[in-house]
This record gives sequence, C-alpha cells and structure tokens, in this order.
Amino acid sequence: MIVLFTDFGLEGPYVGQMKAVLYRDAPGVAVIDLFSDAPPHRARAAAYLLAAYAPEFPLDAVFLAVVDPGVGSKERRAVVVRADGRWYVGPDNGLLNVVSMRARAVCWWEVTWRPARLSASFHGRDLFAPVAAQLASGKSPPGTPVESPAGMSEDWPEDLAEVVYVDHFGNAMTGLRASGVAPDSVLHAGDHALRAARTFSDVSPGEAFWYENANGLVEIAVNQGRADAQLGIAPGDAIHIAAGDKA
Amino acid sequence: MIVLFTDFGLEGPYVGQMKAVLYRDAPGVAVIDLFSDAPPHRARAAAYLLAAYAPEFPLDAVFLAVVDPGVGSKERRAVVVRADGRWYVGPDNGLLNVVSMRARAVCWWEVTWRPARLSASFHGRDLFAPVAAQLASGKSPPGTPVESPAGMSEDWPEDLAEVVYVDHFGNAMTGLRASGVAPDSVLHAGDHALRAARTFSDVSPGEAFWYENANGLVEIAVNQGRADAQLGIAPGDAIHIAAGDKA
Amino acid sequence: MIVLFTDFGLEGPYVGQMKAVLYRDAPGVAVIDLFSDAPPHRARAAAYLLAAYAPEFPLDAVFLAVVDPGVGSKERRAVVVRADGRWYVGPDNGLLNVVSMRARAVCWWEVTWRPARLSASFHGRDLFAPVAAQLASGKSPPGTPVESPAGMSEDWPEDLAEVVYVDHFGNAMTGLRASGVAPDSVLHAGDHALRAARTFSDVSPGEAFWYENANGLVEIAVNQGRADAQLGIAPGDAIHIAAGDKA
Repeated sequence: MIVLFTDFGLEGPYVGQMKAVLYRDAPGVAVIDLFSDAPPHRARAAAYLLAAYAPEFPLDAVFLAVVDPGVGSKERRAVVVRADGRWYVGPDNGLLNVVSMRARAVCWWEVTWRPARLSASFHGRDLFAPVAAQLASGKSPPGTPVESPAGMSEDWPEDLAEVVYVDHFGNAMTGLRASGVAPDSVLHAGDHALRAARTFSDVSPGEAFWYENANGLVEIAVNQGRADAQLGIAPGDAIHIAAGDKA
Repeated sequence: MIVLFTDFGLEGPYVGQMKAVLYRDAPGVAVIDLFSDAPPHRARAAAYLLAAYAPEFPLDAVFLAVVDPGVGSKERRAVVVRADGRWYVGPDNGLLNVVSMRARAVCWWEVTWRPARLSASFHGRDLFAPVAAQLASGKSPPGTPVESPAGMSEDWPEDLAEVVYVDHFGNAMTGLRASGVAPDSVLHAGDHALRAARTFSDVSPGEAFWYENANGLVEIAVNQGRADAQLGIAPGDAIHIAAGDKA
Repeated sequence: MIVLFTDFGLEGPYVGQMKAVLYRDAPGVAVIDLFSDAPPHRARAAAYLLAAYAPEFPLDAVFLAVVDPGVGSKERRAVVVRADGRWYVGPDNGLLNVVSMRARAVCWWEVTWRPARLSASFHGRDLFAPVAAQLASGKSPPGTPVESPAGMSEDWPEDLAEVVYVDHFGNAMTGLRASGVAPDSVLHAGDHALRAARTFSDVSPGEAFWYENANGLVEIAVNQGRADAQLGIAPGDAIHIAAGDKA
C-alpha cells in the first residue's frame, strides 16, 4: 500500500499525476489518499500530523510524503526513512523527523537515484513517486544509508503545542498527543479556555471543548459548529495547557 | 461495490482512513466516492439527497453513509438497512429513513458487533467501514433485526421542500422530486420566482431557472453562473411551489 | 487507463457517478483524476490546459474531457478525437481543439450512439463515460468520422496568453508554453512585471516570479506565498510578454 501525504491540494493535477506514475511503476499496489491538504509549505507542523496518522497503516505501507518548499534547491536532499517497519519517502526538510524520533527502529537513506526527466518544481511526480513505487514493489531504497539529521532532539520537541491542521468541519488539530495531557487540563487557545470532553455529543450544540481525537491528538472542536470561526484559531496558533498538565 | 456518502469533506484524512479499512477488510471491492460533502451534521437533508442518488447504483452496492453529529452517544445506534436489494450502513439518526420509506422491500438491523478499538468520534472508520466491508464480502449484518424507526411517516414528508445541497457550480439541489412537480410550476426561493427549463442551454447566460436534474431532483441553476450567489440561497432554505403543483 | 478532465468539482456526486459507470462498463481499467476543477464553463482555456497535461500519459490513455456549458443543446455534438495515439472523448465546443492542433496525426468522429437513458444535463455520466469505457476496452468509436472543426487555425492561437488555472497554492498557470518564451523575458500580469526563475527556492520567500512549470507552461508564482492574492490575478486575465520574446 502507498499512502499519499502532501500539501498539493486535491484540486488540480498534481495528485493525479503522481498516481499515474505509481500506476505505471507499481500497477497492482493500492494507493490511499491520506492528506492532500497538509499545511502548505509547513514541513514542521506537517511532521507532527504525519506521525499521528501513520501508525494505523499496515507495516508494509509506503508513505509518499511531500511538503517541499525547497524543491529544486541543492541543499534539500531526497530521503527514505524506514521507521518501525513502515517506509517514508520525501524531502529531508524535517517532514520525516517526528516519525523517526518516535520509532524504536529507524534507518535513513539519501536517495541518489535520479530519473531521466527531473523537473525543478515537481519532485513528487518525478522523483519521490518512482522511489515509492520501487519500495512498494519490494526493492531496496535507491540510495545510500545516512545518519539521522543531527540536532534533531533539540529543535524538535516531542509534541508541538500549536494548531497543525483545521479540518472540513472547522475542528483544529494540535501537535499535542492527548496521552501526555491530563484529562482535567484547561487548554488555552487565544483568549479562550477550554475543558475536555469525550466526544461531540457530550457537550451542548455550539459549545467549544477539547478532546482526544480518533488518532490520539488534542483537538479543539465545537459541537455542530466550527471551532476555527468561533474561536478565531488557525494553523500555526500557539496552544497553552494551563493546569493539570502531566509534568 | 462500496459507495461512500459522508459529510467528512474530501480534505483531511477521514475518507482515506476509511478506505484503508475497506481495503484491509474487503481488498477486491471497488470503492466509489459519491458525496464526501453531504450537508454537515444535517442528517435529515442528507437523507433526501442519498435517496435521490442511490437508485442508479447496482443492486449489490453497499452504501457507507455517515452524517453523524451524535457519534459516541449512547442514544445513537448503528444500523444496517437493506432496501430494494441495496445495503446501507450508518447511524440511526434519520439518514437512512428516506431510502427506507421509498423502498418496496426493507429490513433494518441494529449493529451489535463492536470492534476491538472503537474511538468515541470516528465510527466511520472504526465501526461502519468494517461492517460495510463485511456486507460487501457477502456476510450477514452483524447484529439483530429491528423494527423501522417508529413515527417515520409523520415526521418525514415524502419530499423535502428545501435546498439540500449546493454544488461546485453553485447549483442548488432541493429535496423535491421533479416527478411530483408540474413542469409549468413557478418555484419560489427567497424573493425569486423561477420557471422551469429543460437544461442550461435553453435559457440565456446569466438567467436563473429550475430544472429536473440528472437524478430527478428539482434543482435551481443559472446558465453559466452561480445560483447560490445570484439568488442568495443556501442549504436549509425553504422552497415554495406557487402554481401548477400536482396536488 | 482512463483520465478524467472536467470542471465538475471534486465536491458533489458527479465524478463518483462517472466512475461508477466506468467501473460498470470497463471494470479492470485504471481511472486517474487529472483535473476535476478545470476552468468552469470555459472550454477555450481548458483546451490549452488539457493539451499541456495530456502528453505525459500513456499512448493508450482515454481522456474523458467534460467542460460542457452547452450540454443538452442540439448544436453541441459529442466527439471522439484520436491525437498522436491517445483518445479524447468530449463535447465539440473547442475543448479538444488544442490537442488536435498540436498532434501530428489526428482523426475526429462524431458520436452517434445514444444510451437508453440520456439526461439533458449530465452527458458526462450518460454519454461520454460509456464511450470512454468502450474505447478503453479496445472498441472503435461509436460514430462516424468527421472533419476537424473548420476555421480552427484562425480562432485558436498556438498558445493562449492568459491565466488558465490557479492551483491550490495560488500559482497561476498560463496557456503559454515556456518553450516559446525567452528565459530573459519580462512577463506583465496586471501592473506587475515579473522575471523568470528556475524554481521556487531560487527566489526569496514572498517574491513573485514566472517559471516553466513541470508541464512546460509559463506559470506565475510566489515563493511560499500566493501569487493570485499577492498580484491580484485570476483565470481569464491577459498576460503580456514585454521583451526577449522569441519571434
């Protein structure tokens, strides 16, 4: 299985163009769209999102992960990560750091293979998709083993206390895992102080709350309403845990 | 074939997460996205939409239908409906009432099976998708037969005289079947009175009209324009038929 | 492989309804979503977009191309085009003119076959999709050979000097192929004069530029920003090349 995680948007041709390459190079492999609207250009926020959603996929899954503002630059390398049995292909801009940090077993490769045709702006189609197809077909990473990015532990906290994604309903996912937040914690987002609930129907329509979403993240929501509009929150906004936080 | 009908949005991970479960549990079965943007939280409007679009699918189709503001509450049961040879899996909040009302042969089951892992907020992935995969694999509904919801005929009119969906072009679908509306009827939406036309090219560019859409619903449109913006109409708005209505 | 190119929007039922027909009539054939948000109702702009994105698909690909404001009118014919080994099915409103103009070998057919059920407004589902499925299954076009549309060369320039599409990131694609524009050309869009760059990371964050996109089109972009908002440009806006243009 190949799982797509990009900021390309479902609109436009990009996801379809990648799927055509995957079909050409790995025709029998299932392709799942996970996120096509990861935070645009924000590899750091996207890294925490990816790490929350990857573990429910099978061990042989290959994640084709592209949030890549540095596409076409010499500094940005293409990498493959194998973390706890799953494969990840993408840029080395931090997008794959959190799945790597949280894995018990992890290996990194720099992709040295280059296709005959490599555009300057669409490595998702030209470079990452063919590599993902190779991995999904059981081949080895077409590159050389490298060390994990240095200094990762300093720059990358275990959890990210900010809004990383707002969904179709206006619910705001944070980069915080609920397992590290006491259930009686008060969450502060902007001027708003929110208490936890188990699920939507446990609060009144129109009431804001935070809860552990179905992938273990702290998420801010309003029952039958839009948290983003009602609370004025957006991706990148900082979140504070005021009390009851597990130290 | 499994047909997805949800209010999850194509954005975000939810549809992909359900598809990964369907692939795991029913790997050879085709999955079609019908609506991913059914009216959010509005099970009643969505019920009329689903009933208009279901009949063109094959008799063995399994509809995975999730518009589920009550997810995680004790009151809301999970149900399976078999209506005129097609299967429907979803919450018992009314979403499946109209396909049931209009069927010649209908049976209801309450789903009593529970997965090992059941989140409080995402039964689409954890409960409904595995059940849909079981049905698509030829298995029986994992639950017990129940009566149809009581009082359905009083609370649920045969057709719903309101806007139930606005599409990408700004066309406004109503919950009215055109077969019950005389072609010379004048349709009132807000301050606007609209006459019928056969199709877009039968009226001038920029002109508003109503027509029988390709699934038999009364739909309000503007040739080469947006009816929602031009007429100021939105989902939930009431529609009135002023004259020529078949009594 | 069947490739979908429409202005239907990914929202709503239309693409899924077409896919259900394709699955019914050509169950083993891969279906790729290329564009679901081609410029609404603008067959001319869409024609240049289609021609830029078609060549990377395999020779046996069948493009199901629907931008069809004249659907249901008597004047608008349904056609099949075979251009350089690829098939195209759609309306004869100009949408297929540019792929035809640029092909070395091209044949046109008028589709004379009609399905038992033909709605007035959704030929994508009722007419074009079944024809695409037939072609993808190796059958001949169900119609009669016709001449290419007359007067095409006069009304249809080789390239279109306007914005034809704005993507998820706010990048504005034009109908100009970069191969015909000198790299030192200054591109004028509204009041803005833009120089070329190779890719995003070659300019500063927030800086606007034009570049040859991954499909060979002149595209206007802002590094880590939105060109549409920053420059105030939208589909249909004229583009001027001020200097360095290859005569």
